[in-house]
Amino acid sequence: MENAIDNLIEKIKEKNNPTVIGLDPRYEMIPECIRNKYSKDIEGAANAALEFNKALIDEVSDIIPAVKPQVAFYEMLGIPGIKAFNETCKYAKQKGMIVIADMKRGDIGTTAEAYSKAAIGKTMVGEIEQSIFDVEFVTVNPYLGTDGIKPFVEDSKKYGKGIFVLVKTSNKSSGELQDLVTEDGEKIYVKVAKLVNEWGKDLIGKYGYSSISAVVGATYPKELEELRKVMPSAYFLIPGYGAQGGKAEDIALGFDKNGLRRNCKCFKKLNVCI
Amino acid sequence: MENAIDNLIEKIKEKNNPTVIGLDPRYEMIPECIRNKYSKDIEGAANAALEFNKALIDEVSDIIPAVKPQVAFYEMLGIPGIKAFNETCKYAKQKGMIVIADMKRGDIGTTAEAYSKAAIGKTMVGEIEQSIFDVEFVTVNPYLGTDGIKPFVEDSKKYGKGIFVLVKTSNKSSGELQDLVTEDGEKIYVKVAKLVNEWGKDLIGKYGYSSISAVVGATYPKELEELRKVMPSAYFLIPGYGAQGGKAEDIALGFDKNGLRRNCKCFKKLNVCI
Repeated sequence: MENAIDNLIEKIKEKNNPTVIGLDPRYEMIPECIRNKYSKDIEGAANAALEFNKALIDEVSDIIPAVKPQVAFYEMLGIPGIKAFNETCKYAKQKGMIVIADMKRGDIGTTAEAYSKAAIGKTMVGEIEQSIFDVEFVTVNPYLGTDGIKPFVEDSKKYGKGIFVLVKTSNKSSGELQDLVTEDGEKIYVKVAKLVNEWGKDLIGKYGYSSISAVVGATYPKELEELRKVMPSAYFLIPGYGAQGGKAEDIALGFDKNGLRRNCKCFKKLNVCI
Repeated sequence: MENAIDNLIEKIKEKNNPTVIGLDPRYEMIPECIRNKYSKDIEGAANAALEFNKALIDEVSDIIPAVKPQVAFYEMLGIPGIKAFNETCKYAKQKGMIVIADMKRGDIGTTAEAYSKAAIGKTMVGEIEQSIFDVEFVTVNPYLGTDGIKPFVEDSKKYGKGIFVLVKTSNKSSGELQDLVTEDGEKIYVKVAKLVNEWGKDLIGKYGYSSISAVVGATYPKELEELRKVMPSAYFLIPGYGAQGGKAEDIALGFDKNGLRRNCKCFKKLNVCI
């Protein structure tokens, strides 16, 4: 079985670039020349988003290893939006890019199983097994604990996929819960980081990283450094770079000696970096 | 502007029943006579799910006030599944039921806005504003703090909708994070409960409850009692009743003197109760 994080690392080495491009198609940000080709409704907006995404992918697929479509921006366009999300994922894969679906799913065990099937696993109907979105990685929310994450870990093992668990997020109010200090002196995000370490133990690939990895915001450089030590085998997906205020020197702290830090400065306009 | 929780309470009074029916269509649980009408693939499974849901809604809409479709079970059927989810929500509304979409969404501010638009708000494309799933309530995850919840609160105000925030979930490992005790002696779920109280202050309706309310698992009766005191204005969505092991006497502790406790025992086979 393939190991998803090995594949990602190899793609990063091949492109000599640790950046992932976020594909969050906001209608008002899509060039007018594309928007004007389509109807002014959710169907047209979804088609414009897909065309724009394809154009972006065409431009960057030889220099950037991965895309991260944020499903919320497709969901807000209803069924046509979800179709555009699905087509975007397919197109990026065709162009040899790794797809990290930013879905932040999380639920109790049986429901998490269903979410996992949709993103990285397969759905069985009668005797037929079908892939749904079939992305390489999906982001997940840890608030429900181990049994909400386990199905994703199982599917990662079974299908050579992976997850990024929210540990410390890039937004301003992330500290309200994530920074709370427990009675033994550890912060909540450290507790989550330790769980991520546990969950990922069986999926460490040949480069020493696990396919069960972590989201740690670029906007919190001190925490990045701390979490690098707590989760030595976790690969970090570091959102918050660029539009959200994270700088290249902040991100550097999240990389260890194997990290390809040197190219980060090239992509200041992109909102996400690994 | 209408108040969503008032509408729900009035519907509960009208039916004299505080139960919500979960619509989590697992293929293997759908009667064979329905399954056999359709192809054995995700398209057929989605059609079977929709037919089954409609039949259930037809049966219960005169005695049960609300449905709670769990979107994961539709998402695992891909685009046809999301269509079935959308049609299920529409059909339940046509039949006069309140729809609580169990989506457990949560993200940073701008992304939470997009999720909120999809579920309870509206999407603007050019000068046209369109509803997407247009449900009355959506469940949300609090791990990202206030700015991940605020957009849902704003849309609740603007469109007369509401949310149920995960406070204490019904699954076995929910305690791994939710039960951690902070240095000031309070558990994480109590911290979340206090935030829910804050978030809901401006949306308290005529019955004293807020449209910004809480999910508290029936499988944790002691916590239900405790949280009833911490969130006096929160209406409780109490999953875990039935299949997950929660009993009527456990749930009773989550109701206050205004709660319509007496009918709970009638619906032992349903997996969710409010």
